Amino acid sequence: MAPAQPALLVAQSGGPTPVMNASLAGVVEQANLSGIPRVLGARYGIQGVLQRDLMDLKAQPPTLWPRLRRTPSAALGSCRRKLSGEDRQAILKTLIDLQVRYFLYIGGNDSADTALALDRTAREVGYDLQVVSIPKTIDNDLPGTDHCPGYGSAARFIAQSTQDAGLDTEAMRLSDPIKLIEVMGRDAGWLVAAATLGKPDEAHAPHLICVPERPLDIDAFLGAVESTYRRYGFVVAVVAETIRDLAGRPLGTANEVLAADAFGHPNLAGGAATLTALIGRRLGIRARFDKPGTIQRMSMALASPVDLDEAYSAGARAVLYALEGRSGCMVGFTRLEDAPYNCEMNAVDLSLVANQQRVLPAEYLDSGPFSISPRFRDYALPLIGGPIEAYPRLL
Amino acid sequence: MAPAQPALLVAQSGGPTPVMNASLAGVVEQANLSGIPRVLGARYGIQGVLQRDLMDLKAQPPTLWPRLRRTPSAALGSCRRKLSGEDRQAILKTLIDLQVRYFLYIGGNDSADTALALDRTAREVGYDLQVVSIPKTIDNDLPGTDHCPGYGSAARFIAQSTQDAGLDTEAMRLSDPIKLIEVMGRDAGWLVAAATLGKPDEAHAPHLICVPERPLDIDAFLGAVESTYRRYGFVVAVVAETIRDLAGRPLGTANEVLAADAFGHPNLAGGAATLTALIGRRLGIRARFDKPGTIQRMSMALASPVDLDEAYSAGARAVLYALEGRSGCMVGFTRLEDAPYNCEMNAVDLSLVANQQRVLPAEYLDSGPFSISPRFRDYALPLIGGPIEAYPRLL
Repeated sequence: MAPAQPALLVAQSGGPTPVMNASLAGVVEQANLSGIPRVLGARYGIQGVLQRDLMDLKAQPPTLWPRLRRTPSAALGSCRRKLSGEDRQAILKTLIDLQVRYFLYIGGNDSADTALALDRTAREVGYDLQVVSIPKTIDNDLPGTDHCPGYGSAARFIAQSTQDAGLDTEAMRLSDPIKLIEVMGRDAGWLVAAATLGKPDEAHAPHLICVPERPLDIDAFLGAVESTYRRYGFVVAVVAETIRDLAGRPLGTANEVLAADAFGHPNLAGGAATLTALIGRRLGIRARFDKPGTIQRMSMALASPVDLDEAYSAGARAVLYALEGRSGCMVGFTRLEDAPYNCEMNAVDLSLVANQQRVLPAEYLDSGPFSISPRFRDYALPLIGGPIEAYPRLL
Repeated sequence: MAPAQPALLVAQSGGPTPVMNASLAGVVEQANLSGIPRVLGARYGIQGVLQRDLMDLKAQPPTLWPRLRRTPSAALGSCRRKLSGEDRQAILKTLIDLQVRYFLYIGGNDSADTALALDRTAREVGYDLQVVSIPKTIDNDLPGTDHCPGYGSAARFIAQSTQDAGLDTEAMRLSDPIKLIEVMGRDAGWLVAAATLGKPDEAHAPHLICVPERPLDIDAFLGAVESTYRRYGFVVAVVAETIRDLAGRPLGTANEVLAADAFGHPNLAGGAATLTALIGRRLGIRARFDKPGTIQRMSMALASPVDLDEAYSAGARAVLYALEGRSGCMVGFTRLEDAPYNCEMNAVDLSLVANQQRVLPAEYLDSGPFSISPRFRDYALPLIGGPIEAYPRLL
């Protein structure tokens, strides 16, 4: 058999976003433009490489890619799997067997860790492999980049949905005056903070923001709920699903069915349910909660056009970095200006990214225990595609 | 003081929808067109009449109404309040004092009950009052009408979000293969059934549908989850928030903070959380749940254009009925044809509507214990504005 021509292998990893297929489309279309002879996709992330469950992406109809560019989730399938040393050796063997020279990994923190490990393993054995990571996470918690593709779209969903749920609570204040909204984001409050992006003024939703960076003083929170209720007649509080109390204990356990995923992240949920029950019991006020769950990371109707474009560009740029011989890097975004918004892409060393978490900086948390600094808007509004339109109200 | 000119009074009641402001706009714009000299709005439903918390809707800028037509929730405020005999007398006194001759009430079952009571009380004392109810409920459970404004939009949200959450689960099947989605609708399964409207084929989401019309056999449900998982590798189950077990006990209690609202409807929630925990414990498979909560009844991004138009028309038609001297009626929809969709409006006697519930008929429930008959699509697809676009997948 003649030696195979060099191949590019792309995989998707971690929790899906509305735009990670846009990154995939960017990779495949750029690979085709650049004349890479073989383009493979791994099913279910690194698992597909381990099990040689691969697809020939050149065999897909070219008309598919513009459509996938506007399709949420991970078309190749995704996974969460921590690599062992043995896994790394097995993967490298597969890559060598298949003559894969470019390995592109669309993912978050854990994927950066995987990509870095593969880069190092390939160097150790002297195999010429370019490993480039394409950032993807609604949590927005990767270091080395201004922001992460996926965040802007989920943030727009949360900003809009908080206004929606707020308008509902405002109207129903005589029956159901307290609303809690449970938001994803792991240990970082970027997505929770996005709930404030449509807030029209002090009196309207959201009133209280509980980010994971601030352990929750439950008594102080209940006090703030009560005083907000007395003042405005209704309360909307947005709570991280990973919220913990002052002793570091997770508030919710309802969804803690199997304790942790492969990376040791506990499957926490139910913080909002717990607080809802506490509000009823301790304050005697009827409360409800919304938990949009995976819907918050899947809505194409509320995707950010900026985010969709950047995700595509990051995929395409990763191919160019790989072809330039850069390896062990991630495509990062550097912001040049807030308004007009202007970002450029650059290569970030994966060792600065892997297994690191970038949480909300102190400058966004200095405006009170349950609020987010207005400065955060300058950062986040361009990412969600501009302001959330204010709802009209009767005079 | 000269006797006041005759007034129209409009109020909004019950849980908000994306289109109940469209009905309000229809009322006000038609009242203006018809030359009704005074148009009042009651704040927070019937509560605003009791407390004389009223607004002059003629004083609002006319440009507001086209904007409110595309604003979710209840701009006047809403409430759930059961009227006592004393309340009825007090309300009638207010209506007489204010020379209200037309009382238009945008609401669901409980509001129809209130409207009917007011109609009767006015007749008893010989006060000339036209009471017309404008149907509004995402639950779609009013008798005497083909469907209720509000349903089509919430149904489109649920149909789309189930595809979204399904695509997420499909991609994450190796980590989180089971997804439950908790859906509103009180004791009727119309909204839960709408989750099936985007289902592309047998293998894809949603796989299991649990409507309140069918008490849940928990063992059978867990068996169906397991066999679906073995067959397709992932499972999406859509569950009514009011789901009860075979003994009639509600599955969830997490949100049962204050036991019931003014009409005695228990504040049930948490069915999905309970089933999620059971799946983990009994099947040992990692499960998650989404609970869109009030977000499902507030999304303008996913509102049905048909629903928005019909809600507006129902408001305008109610004014015409009142001016024609019809009282004690609700604007109903009669379907003439499924395709092309064609409905006409007519006046339905409120005594046929008040405190009645129209649940899913047997003909939609005869295709298996956890599915919805395909015939339901013919009924519901026109209401959500046509098919949900199928997501493209890799070949």
